[in-house]
This record gives sequence, structure tokens and C-alpha cells, in this order.
Amino acid sequence: MSSRRLLSVTLLNSNQFRKSFAVNSIELYATKMEPKVNLLEDPAFKKLQEYYNANGQKINISQLFQQDSDRFNKFSLHIPTPADGEILLDYSKNRVDDNVWKLLLDLAKSRNVEKARDAMFSGEKINFTEDRAVLHIALRNRQNRPILVGGKDVTPDVNAVLAHMKEFTQQVVSGAWKGYTGKSITDVINIGIGGSDLGPLMVTEALKPYANHLKVHFVSNIDGTHLAEVLKRLNPETALFIIASKTFTTQETITNATSAKNWFLQAAKDESAVSKHFVALSTNAEKVTAFGIDPNNMFGFWDWVGGRYSLWSAIGLSICLHVGFDNFEKLLDGASFMDKHFTTAPLEKNAPIILALLGVWYSNLYGAETHALLPYDQYLHRFAAYFQQGDMESNGKYVTRGGAQVGYSTGPVVWGEPGTNGQHAFYQLIHQGTRLIPCDFIAPAQSHNPISGGVHHKILLANFLAQTEALMKGKTEQEAKAELEKSGMSGEALAKILPHKVFPGNRPTNSIVVRKLTPFTLGALIAMYEHKIFTQGVIWDINSFDQWGVELGKQLAKAIEPELQDSAPVSTHDASTNGLINFLKQNF
Amino acid sequence: MSSRRLLSVTLLNSNQFRKSFAVNSIELYATKMEPKVNLLEDPAFKKLQEYYNANGQKINISQLFQQDSDRFNKFSLHIPTPADGEILLDYSKNRVDDNVWKLLLDLAKSRNVEKARDAMFSGEKINFTEDRAVLHIALRNRQNRPILVGGKDVTPDVNAVLAHMKEFTQQVVSGAWKGYTGKSITDVINIGIGGSDLGPLMVTEALKPYANHLKVHFVSNIDGTHLAEVLKRLNPETALFIIASKTFTTQETITNATSAKNWFLQAAKDESAVSKHFVALSTNAEKVTAFGIDPNNMFGFWDWVGGRYSLWSAIGLSICLHVGFDNFEKLLDGASFMDKHFTTAPLEKNAPIILALLGVWYSNLYGAETHALLPYDQYLHRFAAYFQQGDMESNGKYVTRGGAQVGYSTGPVVWGEPGTNGQHAFYQLIHQGTRLIPCDFIAPAQSHNPISGGVHHKILLANFLAQTEALMKGKTEQEAKAELEKSGMSGEALAKILPHKVFPGNRPTNSIVVRKLTPFTLGALIAMYEHKIFTQGVIWDINSFDQWGVELGKQLAKAIEPELQDSAPVSTHDASTNGLINFLKQNF
Repeated sequence: MSSRRLLSVTLLNSNQFRKSFAVNSIELYATKMEPKVNLLEDPAFKKLQEYYNANGQKINISQLFQQDSDRFNKFSLHIPTPADGEILLDYSKNRVDDNVWKLLLDLAKSRNVEKARDAMFSGEKINFTEDRAVLHIALRNRQNRPILVGGKDVTPDVNAVLAHMKEFTQQVVSGAWKGYTGKSITDVINIGIGGSDLGPLMVTEALKPYANHLKVHFVSNIDGTHLAEVLKRLNPETALFIIASKTFTTQETITNATSAKNWFLQAAKDESAVSKHFVALSTNAEKVTAFGIDPNNMFGFWDWVGGRYSLWSAIGLSICLHVGFDNFEKLLDGASFMDKHFTTAPLEKNAPIILALLGVWYSNLYGAETHALLPYDQYLHRFAAYFQQGDMESNGKYVTRGGAQVGYSTGPVVWGEPGTNGQHAFYQLIHQGTRLIPCDFIAPAQSHNPISGGVHHKILLANFLAQTEALMKGKTEQEAKAELEKSGMSGEALAKILPHKVFPGNRPTNSIVVRKLTPFTLGALIAMYEHKIFTQGVIWDINSFDQWGVELGKQLAKAIEPELQDSAPVSTHDASTNGLINFLKQNF
Repeated sequence: MSSRRLLSVTLLNSNQFRKSFAVNSIELYATKMEPKVNLLEDPAFKKLQEYYNANGQKINISQLFQQDSDRFNKFSLHIPTPADGEILLDYSKNRVDDNVWKLLLDLAKSRNVEKARDAMFSGEKINFTEDRAVLHIALRNRQNRPILVGGKDVTPDVNAVLAHMKEFTQQVVSGAWKGYTGKSITDVINIGIGGSDLGPLMVTEALKPYANHLKVHFVSNIDGTHLAEVLKRLNPETALFIIASKTFTTQETITNATSAKNWFLQAAKDESAVSKHFVALSTNAEKVTAFGIDPNNMFGFWDWVGGRYSLWSAIGLSICLHVGFDNFEKLLDGASFMDKHFTTAPLEKNAPIILALLGVWYSNLYGAETHALLPYDQYLHRFAAYFQQGDMESNGKYVTRGGAQVGYSTGPVVWGEPGTNGQHAFYQLIHQGTRLIPCDFIAPAQSHNPISGGVHHKILLANFLAQTEALMKGKTEQEAKAELEKSGMSGEALAKILPHKVFPGNRPTNSIVVRKLTPFTLGALIAMYEHKIFTQGVIWDINSFDQWGVELGKQLAKAIEPELQDSAPVSTHDASTNGLINFLKQNF
């Protein structure tokens, strides 16, 4: 423990922050997350930068394939799962040659990625600005190995909540759970926002082929429209509301929950009926009880579960209800499988680390600002939206763990829509725009809906394959010219249109292929990206686990709210904010 | 016509391109879209660059407000509509001082934005690589002024199709239109992709408060899952399919349409019933008829309607059916209103031009790569996805109209999700990340769902206001320190956490406020962004109207498709594409 630097400072909660953060002591650096030199001063990064300066603009992916017949084998990874086939990660279509790859692996070593990973898995309080461990991996610790937080094994608590979720799920799915008029539940409404919404929403959409008879709905936005539109479709006698807020104080969630309760009581006209139709994913027993929820129907989690990593916890209850507890367990199994891969595979065969290094290469050397997630599976239509939070809230930071301004780029803007839809929307820019956009393509070999003899899925896959090929190869002036000549064009007309038909190519892509989108493979995919994001945070030396950047807006909103209650003009802000407020008031 | 340079070159259609482009003559430069000097050589841009170099990093938005009490009035615009209140565009929270603004307006003049605009509105073939006029504005030409294409007024044709849409809408909405068993229609399914999907989808979601009893569904993805999941919810006796494909050859759309027809015929068992349940938005009468659709139920449009500008055309039929023809007309009216604003307001009071110039300022001077669209209205949840196509397909180009590589950045990556949801997802990065992300906030003063006495909407608006304030103001080290001290923290602990609590601020935002989200204001908002994108394309001197970048992937997919039909290993591609294909085949 000699290198451990511990400061125990007793803090009071800040009145300024709505979200209490209950910091009792601040462990500034965990054992294995010791201070680092600035990335730009790291010798491994400097070598990478030198190599980039000399070669970066010359590296051509197609040429690399021509030069090395073994390239695909070298730069792809087969990960065999126990029962769901192999996961293939093909990262050979990147601007990476053998030298770059060696330098990137050296960077991972130099940034102590493996030590940081071990610190996370051992329960150290690596989220030092909130004095918390980061243990979503403990939620899917299927081997039940002891994971200690403050000397106490958290595994029994995790298993107890899982058992509670299982029991509750069986009651509701079987129809044994009755509403206030004796009817079984038909609709489940998850009311939560951010991490208490995006994960369950994405996963229930992704696993729709496994769904039972229970319909799930999600209400997140404070905009009354979101709740109102969902309530239109519900019968209060058969609706079950899950209120997902750890503190039970999240403004959006509690406002929506209260309005939902009022709607329910207009029909039920009996406060005691609330407990039959509302349950809580929370740890605040007092507020939960005051709301009218039976504390027995409260599903807890812990301060070491960050919101954006919480779908594995009680926050996943809507997933259980929609696809059954067994499938939820398979989701956990898949994530656990990827955890094991991440902790045991050597750097150069480690999928999350490989993805992380490629991201750093494009972000910090080539200056790419964004990263596109392009699932060729309609069920994954919210995958990119989910990782917008997972990535951008984690790595959208500009100070190092040591408190210095980074001086280099950190997390990218993550975005994307499913293929082939994206092809008809924004791929034009990826192919012929001026921005470098590294893309991850994700595709299942088998469809859950092989309609019309499978013709749809073959076309879908042909498009996925063709896009990665096209982005790499491009179309040369020679090729475009030959095509135009074949079409009968020549002379000045040809010369004028030709440049518009040329594709520069050399656009980097990863391809991630699974046999089928199952609960297990989905769990593994999500965990793979979680660990990718973690690894990048380590390389950038930032705290990927806090989100102080969301607090200021909340503070200021609290000040503005009362100002909107009357029609008096406001002059307490800058002229723009005043002007906007006063315009709104004139139009209420 | 002396400056007009016309080349009439007869072309054959290319076998290589699936989408025939039927170019008979190429008008290389329209009268008013004459060649330009490279942007970087434009004297107005050079001055802007010089000013940026000297001052760009010093401009502080908060300071500008302190220095100029008239700033909000100077940098905001009230646009009064005839019956839907004012539209407020507040662009005062930008890194723009009086000098920058003057230089940006000079740039607009120097790039001949107004002449280009007039060229578009007068029907010139400004889409010169496809030899087409660009006349979505003719689709909402509510004043019926003559708009000539090739000497012929297109207005009567536009009005004839509108009359046809009106008649059809009334038949279906009234229930007079009967299915093959004599029942009225309950569900409308739009099958289209890209521009034949995103616009109607976004608008029907946005105008849900105006919806009638007809449910609308959208199937776009070739992934069989998309169609299969929609079909589960339908009764063939009461379903009406709209097949939206101009050429009636778009692979995704025709494959989906064919599978939908087969599903229908399994129930109807009578080919002649198809015409009661399928209509076409197309111009290919032969293929439409062969499909089994009555040519009387074919709604046409023209080669001067680009896909991403087509919601105003027959492609909007699903909008008409969902919200009624009157509301569709109001949508057109709103767009027409904005067209008039764009064509008549002086540069410095012209909303689309203002937005365009700000975008250029951040993109080409500050190096911003993305632009976020953040509607504070749940009904606008697909607004950003819509303009991903609108913007990125239009301006994702790397060669000038003259055929040279641009040498500067063009269109940004457009992305976003509704507030307040985004606040709990990716705003962390906007506040405290290392990327500069210009944001447009869009909010209505009045909600369609003022539930719980309007409390939801007030909180929603307080958050919108607070975010633009917070992004500008940030939180200084002093302020953060004072808050931490107030919470009882001191010494080294305070010093260590302090940097993580500081917000740099100075993040630019636009705020666009409407009284209420109505068909009219929505139409105006969409047209405003359309013209913003147009203006940027003019400044960047690119052709915003073609999309050759989507062709290569289609070509290559055609070659791969047959290779997926058997189990034989493939070796015709690069090693990566071969490897992916062979992995997929092993897993089919």
C-alpha cells in the first residue's frame, strides 16, 4: 500500500448540487490508477506521433492488403462463445500497418491499461471524484467470485436483488400479480431518464424476438407529451409502472411518476391501489414509501453502479419483464463472458483494447471528431443512441485525473442509424465528404425474420459488406472515367462530371459479426463497448465515471423555473436569456 | 445569356449505375451559379480568416453581452407569421462580435448567395451534374406564380397532384375507400427509404396532435425485421400500403413492397384485390401497373424534386392521410412563408442565411466537425435524423462545382436527440468535452399536452433556457471553489476536485422559439433549414443536390449478392471482404 495516496477529508453535502453525492472521503488515486504523464509527453505517444507525422497521410488500406496476404488473419479476431457461435472482429480495414499496431500496443502498455483494468475489477475506488468503486462488472459476476468493496463482498447482495427480480418477473409474467380490479398486467411502463431509460429501451428493442405478451413502454422526457402519448394507449387496470431513480429525486422521473400516479388514481380512486401498479428501482426507501409504493417492491442497487452502466442492475427490470428472467440472465452471461475476455486476453488479442486503440489513433492523430455506430439490424435501432450516453458522458472530459487541462482530444461524438437506412441518408458524407469518420459496422449472420426465403437478409448483408469494401477501395479517376466512357460520354462533358464520380476511399471501418443477435451476444457486444470506452479513458487519463458536466444546467434551471410562473418580465440574466424568457412568457 | 456556358452532349445511360440518371445534356453552369474562386482565395474569406487568426480565440460571448447592452436586439430576429405567432431566432449567444458579423455578411455577398438563391427559385438547372432544376419550392408555391422549367410552367401539374392527393385522402379518411372485404382502412403503411421515408416519418411524428383515426407505419430498412414487425400489427383487410419510389426500382422499397404484397395475398388470395390496398408514389406507370396497382392511384412527381426535399410532394401522402389534407396544406403554407422570407429579407435579417453563416464560421474557422439539433419537444424526436439526410447528403461533398478538390471543410455531421433526454446522455461532452459543438435549441412556448397544470412544460422550458445559459456562462474556478468551500471542503481535497467542477463555457448556441408546434410553424422550420443548407452549399461552391456518393456501395452490393447464395468460399475481393463473406457463410 506504499504507493497509495489517501486523503480522508470529511465533506458536507453541497446545497448547490441537487444530486447529493455523499462524499465522505476522497481517495485521490487508487493503487493502480497512479498519476500519469500527460499523453503528449508519454514516450510511447511521442513515437506514435512521429510515425504519424512521417507516414500518417501515406498509409493506404487497400495497398496494405496488396502488400500483405496475411493481413486479414493478422488484424481480425475470432472470439468463440460457449453456445452462440463466434464473434468476429475484423479490424483489418484500418489505416494501420504493422508499425502503427506495435506503437499502439506500446501505448496501451505505457498507459498501464491492464493495471487500470485490474483496479476496476478489484473494486478500487477508481471514480475518485465521487469516491466510488466502478463495479458494473459485479452485476454480471456469474462465477460468484468475491468482489470486495470496503472489505465486504458485494456478490451476495447482487444475487439477492437478482433473486428478487426473478421472483417478481415470474409473478407478473405468469399473471399471478393482479391489479386493483383483479386483472393481470398487460403493459409495463418504465419511467426513468438517462441511464435509467436508454439501456432498458435499447435492449428491449434489440431483444424483441424474445418478448412475451407484456408490452413495454418508456417515458423519459419531462415534456408532458412523452407521458401523455403513452398513457393514451394504457388501461389503468392492467398497467404496471416502474419508477427508476436511484435517489427517487430525479426531477424528470418524479414529475412523470407523479403525473402517472394522478392519472392512475383518477381511475382507481384509491391510494392503496398504487402499490399494485407502481414499483421502484431505487435505494431511497423513505421517498419510495411516501409515494405509495410497497418497500417490498423496491429493487435496490449501489453507489458503485453508474447510471450509464446500470442496465445490468435492477434498472434492467423492464428487460426481465419483457423477455423473461432467463433471457436477462443470458444477457448477463454474455457480458460476463466479455469481462473474462477483457481481463484475460493479451493486449493484442483483446477486442475492447483493440477498438480503443484504433479510436485513439483516429481521434488523437488524424483528428477525427466523431465515431459512427452502424448496426445492420433493425432491432439495434437505438444502439448508437445508447452509446451516445455510454461514450460521451464517460469520456466527454477536458481535465486529467490529476486536474490538468488535457491539451488533446478526448471522447468523440458518437452517432449512427441502422443500415441500410443510413446509406440513404448520411453515407454520402462518409464516402465523399471532407470529414474522416471511423465506422463500426455490426451485423448478424442470421436474421430473426428470414422472410421471403431470406432474400431480405442476403441483400442486407451484401450492403453491409459492400459498404466496408467501398469505403476502403473508393473509385479512382481511371475507374470513374472508364465507366463514363462506357456510358457514351466524352470530352469536356466527361471532364466536368468526372471529379464528382471519384471516391477517395481509404475510409476506415471495423466489422463486428455475430452468428445471431441473441441475449448472450448482445450482452457481450455491450460489454465490449463499455470496456473500449474504459480503456480510452485510461489512455486519456480522465475520470470516465463522473458527470459533473450535467450539474450546471440543473442548477440554473432551478433558478429559472420560478421565473416562468408569472407574466412579469425578467431581467436577472444576460440579455439573451432574459429575451428568451420574456418572449416565451408573452406566448404562454 | 452571354455568360451562359451550355454543352449539349447526348449520353447513354450507364450500365454501371442502378439508378438511371437520364442525362441528355449537361448544363455545366447555370446563368447565376457561375464559377467561383476557391473559398480560401475569396478576399472576403481571407479577411474573415485574418480576423479569426487575430481574435478568434479571444472572443468571449459573456463578455460581448457585458460590453453591449443592445446585443440581444442586434443578434435576434422576430419573424411574425400570419396566424401562428412570431418565430424568434436568437443567435446572440455566438462567438460573433460586430466585426465578425460584418465580415460574414460580406462573405455571403462575395459568394453571391442571393444570385444563387434567385437561380434556384427561377427554375435554373443548378443541379448541373444531373442536369436538373431544384424546385421543391415549386411544391409549396401557394401563390401560384408561374415557375418555368424548360419554358413550361410546372404549377398546374403541382396543383393537379395536390388535388389528386386531396381527393384520395378524403376517400380514405372518410372511410369511403373500402378494402377487399368491404371494410374501411385503419392502417397506412408507407414503404420507402431515405427521402421517401424520413420526411413523412418525422412530420407524422411531429404532428401527432393533429392525427385522425388512421394509424401510420413506416417500413424502410431492407432488414426483414422492419417489415415483419409492422405486419404483426396489421389486418390485411384494413391495411393500405403506399409504395414510395420514384423509379419503382429502389431495391429496398420494391423488395419490401413485394413481401408485403405476398403477405397480403396470403389472406386475400386474389390478385385483383391488390389495387384496393396498394398505391404508388412514383412516375414509372409501367412497373406500377405490373405490380398490380391501379395507375389511377399513382401519384407522380418530377425530376426537379430531390428525394431529401420530397416530403412536400406526393411523398407526403402519408402525412395527408395521418393529419388530413388541410393540415398538409398548412405545412406547405408554412414552408411557402419561409420561402418568401428567404427570398425577400435582406441578408442581415434572413434566418436561413444567418444560420448558414454561423455554421461556416464554426466549421471553417473554428474547425467544428458537427452540428447538434436539440428540439425541446418530444414530438420532434426524429428532427435531427431527418436533417442528417437533409444536410449530410446535400453538403457531404469534397469537390467544387468546378471539379476541384475543395481544400476546406464542407458539411458537418448533424446529430441530436430531444431535450431533456439529451441532457442525461451526451450534454456532458458538450459542456466539458474537448470538442466545439454548435447547438441549435428549438422550443415551443406552448405544449400540446399541458398535463398536471402545465408543470411539465415549465420545467422543460426552464431546462432549455438553463442549458443555453450554462453553455455560454460556464462556471469559473472562483465560482466552483466558492461552492465547494460552502459545502465544507478545503485544502488539498478541494484543490484536487476543483478542476473537475469548472466549466469553460463560451459554447455557442442558437435558440429558435415558436409559439406552438403547428403544421405551419413546422413547415416554416423545415424550410428554414433547407435554405440554410442551400446557402452553405453556395458558400462552399459545391453541388448540394446530387448524391453520387451513394452509388458505389450499391454497385458493389450487386456484385456481392449472388456470392451469398451458396456455401462456396469466396476469393474475389480483398482479404477482409473475403474473410467476412466466408465467415458469414459458415454461420448462415
